[in-house]
Amino acid sequence: MEIVVIGAGNVATHLAKALDKVHNVVQVFSPTLSHAQELNDKLRESQPIDQLRDINRKADLYIISVSDDAIPLISHQLGKVDGIVAHTSGSVPLTALEGVSDKIGVFYPLQTFSKDVDVDLKKVTIFNEADNDSTLSVLDELAQKIAKESKHANSEQRRQLHIAAVFACNFTNYLWSAADDILHKEGFDFEVLSPLLHATLEKALSNSPQKSQTGPAARKDIGVIESHLKKLDGDYKKIYQLLSNSIIRKYNK
Amino acid sequence: MEIVVIGAGNVATHLAKALDKVHNVVQVFSPTLSHAQELNDKLRESQPIDQLRDINRKADLYIISVSDDAIPLISHQLGKVDGIVAHTSGSVPLTALEGVSDKIGVFYPLQTFSKDVDVDLKKVTIFNEADNDSTLSVLDELAQKIAKESKHANSEQRRQLHIAAVFACNFTNYLWSAADDILHKEGFDFEVLSPLLHATLEKALSNSPQKSQTGPAARKDIGVIESHLKKLDGDYKKIYQLLSNSIIRKYNK
Repeated sequence: MEIVVIGAGNVATHLAKALDKVHNVVQVFSPTLSHAQELNDKLRESQPIDQLRDINRKADLYIISVSDDAIPLISHQLGKVDGIVAHTSGSVPLTALEGVSDKIGVFYPLQTFSKDVDVDLKKVTIFNEADNDSTLSVLDELAQKIAKESKHANSEQRRQLHIAAVFACNFTNYLWSAADDILHKEGFDFEVLSPLLHATLEKALSNSPQKSQTGPAARKDIGVIESHLKKLDGDYKKIYQLLSNSIIRKYNK
Repeated sequence: MEIVVIGAGNVATHLAKALDKVHNVVQVFSPTLSHAQELNDKLRESQPIDQLRDINRKADLYIISVSDDAIPLISHQLGKVDGIVAHTSGSVPLTALEGVSDKIGVFYPLQTFSKDVDVDLKKVTIFNEADNDSTLSVLDELAQKIAKESKHANSEQRRQLHIAAVFACNFTNYLWSAADDILHKEGFDFEVLSPLLHATLEKALSNSPQKSQTGPAARKDIGVIESHLKKLDGDYKKIYQLLSNSIIRKYNK
């Protein structure tokens, strides 16, 4: 299978490297040639390009892995091709690709990617969507080759997956950052929490987060909650208050 | 060193087992004899008791590991002893033990304990406090024997550590529980997030949470934030809004 990768960011890089091991990535496009070249250097026999008019129009699959806003622009400029066209975004509906091919799809890996941090795709689920069954099968087979598994999610389900990931990862990271601030004021490093963080995550994964909830709010320990609120101000105080009240409402019905 | 463990809950159980390997735990007290017996069965040569008047008054160390509210009551009933008396709570000040001994301290393991889940204390930091240096040295040596390391925290620092742990563990677990709810409505398991959760934690620990912040709010992507808010209601909507606004304020100064 000949594959063109459009984009050279974090997701594009990780996917292109994995795809190149099981099929042929023939071209890498980025509007910045040096970015296309940088990714190209990690592949076997590909060509870096910075003009969409130079795109190989006979490829079997075009993976569009660019920022959400750029997806409609890129697909408009690409014009109609015969191969499958799939984007990799959690938030953009399948319909954003309408017109660019008769075989459109979404290939969404539920993972956070940083360019220089290796990701074991063999642990990652890829959520696929397509406008017809044969396209969906092609994307499923591909996902099974490079990732842990493929699942199906329509555009609405994919949006909900993205919302869940925002709660589970972006917001939790922000709370860790609040903890880090609080610790630093007392001269401690975030790292002192490491065993506690690992234990909390393993417990949530093995017993479910619902059953693992502990802490002052879960036991409705108003004395401790109030003594903590007295020590906080600004956003952290508001966050402590809202989350504690919400936990109390949920666990003390 | 002869040690009496007062309490038979999660913290008491994990500490007693570890202490019994390096010193002699001679008694375990719980007001419920069966609880004292259950813990006692895990130790080498200890005695289970349910009356404070039966406590061995010649022990070198008394570890009080009971609920925060019970600490002043227990120490009042215990009466004055010669050995060191230390409690294990994050929130209770050292002064709660005044009068029970001339050698009082705090021995606070920063970890979450569940009775049936093994904890590797060798990864845990124990935060010690004492009213004199020789007591502090005894607690430090003990911590170094059973845990990863000992650090010192006065009562105010210990409270801040506890607040940080509430943010980093109790609140994050609640956000995972929100993610779990959202996923279940779409027919997905919380487990699909597992690779993402592990990657997020490792990134925060290696690069600091501040530098690892990603997501719609960190890039001030108002379009995605508003599309997510439309899909949420109740507490989860309020939480999404407050955390996103707070992230925007922090990362877009």
